Amino acid sequence: MGRWKPDSRARLQAAAMDLYATEGFTATTAAAIAERAGLSESTFFRHFADKREALFGGEQELRDHLARAAQDAEPGNTYAAVTAALTAVAGELQPRRAELRRRGAVVALHPELQERELIKLASWSGALEQALRARGEPASLLVAEVAIAVLNASAQRWLEEETDRPLIDVVHDHLAVLAAVLEPSRRHR
Amino acid sequence: MGRWKPDSRARLQAAAMDLYATEGFTATTAAAIAERAGLSESTFFRHFADKREALFGGEQELRDHLARAAQDAEPGNTYAAVTAALTAVAGELQPRRAELRRRGAVVALHPELQERELIKLASWSGALEQALRARGEPASLLVAEVAIAVLNASAQRWLEEETDRPLIDVVHDHLAVLAAVLEPSRRHR
Repeated sequence: MGRWKPDSRARLQAAAMDLYATEGFTATTAAAIAERAGLSESTFFRHFADKREALFGGEQELRDHLARAAQDAEPGNTYAAVTAALTAVAGELQPRRAELRRRGAVVALHPELQERELIKLASWSGALEQALRARGEPASLLVAEVAIAVLNASAQRWLEEETDRPLIDVVHDHLAVLAAVLEPSRRHR
Repeated sequence: MGRWKPDSRARLQAAAMDLYATEGFTATTAAAIAERAGLSESTFFRHFADKREALFGGEQELRDHLARAAQDAEPGNTYAAVTAALTAVAGELQPRRAELRRRGAVVALHPELQERELIKLASWSGALEQALRARGEPASLLVAEVAIAVLNASAQRWLEEETDRPLIDVVHDHLAVLAAVLEPSRRHR
């Protein structure tokens, strides 16, 4: 290691993940995370409201990225907006598979982290809904909620799989499965 | 009013909704709810862990109802399982529209209640996923997550609408909208 140091926020997140994975989330304190990152506790609290938040860094950037992709997609094409949003997030998550697996293992053990995960997904859905509505899409709430449900199910499947299939391929496969399942509903229109 | 009294649990829930709507959720105490229901505070806490829970009574019954309906649907037909589950819940919610509107107005004002609402939906999705998996359905996580997303978006739309369109009609309309949006994905298979 040379003199270069990654930024404090990323160091704190990496230290938090290490400690959560080895010591457990409950036993780990903000002070211990800061110490492992070679930073002060007050620096920790400048970046995160509490130790739970250290697992959710970057979620706002992803949310904005997702909403912007939907906004910039071909006008009047709902499917294009949905796939653009999902492609944008999948592209960001793809290189982080190992880290996300470790993170998922910690989240799975703690109901309070699972709740925080639900809040994150709801916030993404809200941002996507707004983006779709701004495009004049009909049923923007429905489409946003379903798109995020697809993203969540796809990411979980992708993290469990032992193959190297990219996340975006799982997403497209899931969209096709869903279209096939829903096919009978078109007779009702 | 005669001598007949509805059960304590229902009385406490009705009193809680009245007070949340008039005094606000934050200002209302468990003691005040119990007093309004003509019951003791200890009775309140026999029924609910805290005042938040008084808004979420009956969610387990609905969850079991939903899962059972999916389980009992025509074998090997994913669409039938999904619509059976959604029809079961819609049938339970349909007569409660006025109450659910008041409840929704309270929930919308309080992030902690919105979080609890997300937990409820996640629990429903988990139960539906299990039921689908027990039927041997492929992609049970995906289908369950999306079905609950459709239910949530449909219920919100139904509560906002000024027409008398039944919830189950909104659900079927949403399923058809979704099938149409996803149609391009079938080309990828």
